[in-house]
Amino acid sequence: MIIAKRFHIKDEIRILGIDDSALISDTVTIVGAFFRGGLWLDGVLRSEITRDGLDATDRIIKMICQSKHFPQIRAIMLDGITYGGFNPVDIVCLNKETNIPVIVLMRSLPNLEAMESALSFLPDKEKRLEIIKKAGTISKVITKDESNPVFIQCCGIKPEFATRIVQISSTRSNIPEPLRVAHLIATGIILGESRGKA
Amino acid sequence: MIIAKRFHIKDEIRILGIDDSALISDTVTIVGAFFRGGLWLDGVLRSEITRDGLDATDRIIKMICQSKHFPQIRAIMLDGITYGGFNPVDIVCLNKETNIPVIVLMRSLPNLEAMESALSFLPDKEKRLEIIKKAGTISKVITKDESNPVFIQCCGIKPEFATRIVQISSTRSNIPEPLRVAHLIATGIILGESRGKA
Repeated sequence: MIIAKRFHIKDEIRILGIDDSALISDTVTIVGAFFRGGLWLDGVLRSEITRDGLDATDRIIKMICQSKHFPQIRAIMLDGITYGGFNPVDIVCLNKETNIPVIVLMRSLPNLEAMESALSFLPDKEKRLEIIKKAGTISKVITKDESNPVFIQCCGIKPEFATRIVQISSTRSNIPEPLRVAHLIATGIILGESRGKA
Repeated sequence: MIIAKRFHIKDEIRILGIDDSALISDTVTIVGAFFRGGLWLDGVLRSEITRDGLDATDRIIKMICQSKHFPQIRAIMLDGITYGGFNPVDIVCLNKETNIPVIVLMRSLPNLEAMESALSFLPDKEKRLEIIKKAGTISKVITKDESNPVFIQCCGIKPEFATRIVQISSTRSNIPEPLRVAHLIATGIILGESRGKA
């Protein structure tokens, strides 16, 4: 709490967590869960991106800027850097266009070699890799469970602030509520019942 | 808290709140938000019903009984007795088939005369009216805001228990969280952005 006060981060900081649904067609639904910190869901957004496409950044920017919640959002949280298969989100561009800090959360350290190899099967490999690489430095963050850390990348915000926002909003598990709930909604709506995440 | 203990109702009682989406086609999406009391969303269910049809009861029973959460659900909460226009839910049948208590929540007292008049434009008027009428006695419940009571009907549970469950789960507003969140998800997913309710 002392750290939160020093950084002027409120417990109810408005966060938009974004996750995608299962890959069952060429169009993949993405869901935004607009949260007050790790406490309350205050809105739900929905958009579509192309499976293995290159439109995730633009579609997310549009979804956010068209939302009535846009002026209130203080942080955008992404569940990894690629959505709908290998549709990468350019977090530098997302931050620039929305003027909102972006935090990418990962459950484990990404394997860039495996990613590069998988990307070989898709067009625009170099462009995708460039977007993935520009997400920058990875930091480890301890949330609720010391033995189960998460990892973050961020843009438009200092890593220590991003760390604190991730910690404040991880009220129920080691994953921030905006991302945990966006995942439940995205999988539940598309599959008929929500599923857990490894 | 003393009342809750006397009735053996836990703060984290598992509740499934069900709401429908906007009427933009002949098929209407319904969403189930599986909650721990008024605290955490733990699952999302989805199904479809026919606008102004007579399949809401069967579709809700199927959605619940097929869910992995089925054995844990201790109360089903409905947002009014009709879904997808005038597709009425038979709460006696819903309770009997699932063996789970059913609580219907209303923001204001229903106007049965206006409802009867509207039903005149649909087939099976008498059948619909019978389902609506068998939902039984209406009780007033004060939740978070004394000046803004809600009203309930219930089946398979004593009104005083149902009242307590509604009160326990109304943590954020005068509407129980499972219903408030089911509404945000249903409207957000179908319309692209969630909407408030009058």
